[in-house]
Amino acid sequence: MPDSTAPPAIQDLYPENLAHCYGCGRLNPHGHRIRTFVDEQGQSVSEFIPDASHIAVPGFVYGGVIASLIDCHSTATAAAAMAAAGAAAAHASPSRPPPRFVTASLHVDYLRPTPLGAALVVRGSAREIKGRKVVVESTVYAGGVATARGEVVAVMMPEAFGQA
Amino acid sequence: MPDSTAPPAIQDLYPENLAHCYGCGRLNPHGHRIRTFVDEQGQSVSEFIPDASHIAVPGFVYGGVIASLIDCHSTATAAAAMAAAGAAAAHASPSRPPPRFVTASLHVDYLRPTPLGAALVVRGSAREIKGRKVVVESTVYAGGVATARGEVVAVMMPEAFGQA
Repeated sequence: MPDSTAPPAIQDLYPENLAHCYGCGRLNPHGHRIRTFVDEQGQSVSEFIPDASHIAVPGFVYGGVIASLIDCHSTATAAAAMAAAGAAAAHASPSRPPPRFVTASLHVDYLRPTPLGAALVVRGSAREIKGRKVVVESTVYAGGVATARGEVVAVMMPEAFGQA
Repeated sequence: MPDSTAPPAIQDLYPENLAHCYGCGRLNPHGHRIRTFVDEQGQSVSEFIPDASHIAVPGFVYGGVIASLIDCHSTATAAAAMAAAGAAAAHASPSRPPPRFVTASLHVDYLRPTPLGAALVVRGSAREIKGRKVVVESTVYAGGVATARGEVVAVMMPEAFGQA
């Protein structure tokens, strides 16, 4: 459980009706609950400990879980970057949650097998903000070694998401 | 449970020590158990019914699960294509399992929100086989509507996978 004195994760600030994501939703009891923080350099950092079942072959983490980690890390990074840039001024006010992003495209390069056992750390930042779109680059590390690299194009969720 | 008179899925033929994948391993009791078949036109087809928890926001499938579906569909498609091409003749013999592939890169374009509820169908084929590498293109359909498109570069798993 989050420490109540610790700073909130970006995902802790998502509004309740958008906090059920299987990857990072705090209200999804079956999901991965990926949590992302912004460090002092403005870079976003996620940590995730894969479950023993999250394997591709015994001893190594499943690529789909790594893709999920990059996905949720990136939408959170986009939300933080957009809020920080003030590009969504109405959403950046402290009394409002950060804007919620959806993934338009996801690219992952698997650099080497990711060993199971260590906490995985994802570090990344927004490379580009243009209108409602943010491009996020990130790297996944296991025991300090880069094992995957991701690029996500994230787009602010339309109010009418999922309608028609 | 699979019907014993039905043709096996490609994943049913993976050797036991490589059948624990969280996405598609028949021996992973907690995984998605994605199964892929080759149809009469030589195109590969996977079907998957997301769980109620596999959501991005209520009512819509999580992109990480769609990425996983494309990932395992594609490595299975690569295995079938490589076997069919006879490029891995030693592995293509009926007495041997299809070659097992790992993902070098994964790209997903999310075309529209994928509604939860319907069985998702992935169709795709190998666009290119070169040495140990297969490029697989695929499309995810929900209720007959294309919701995501994937491209995977799959590489035959080295004997020494994960060593060093």
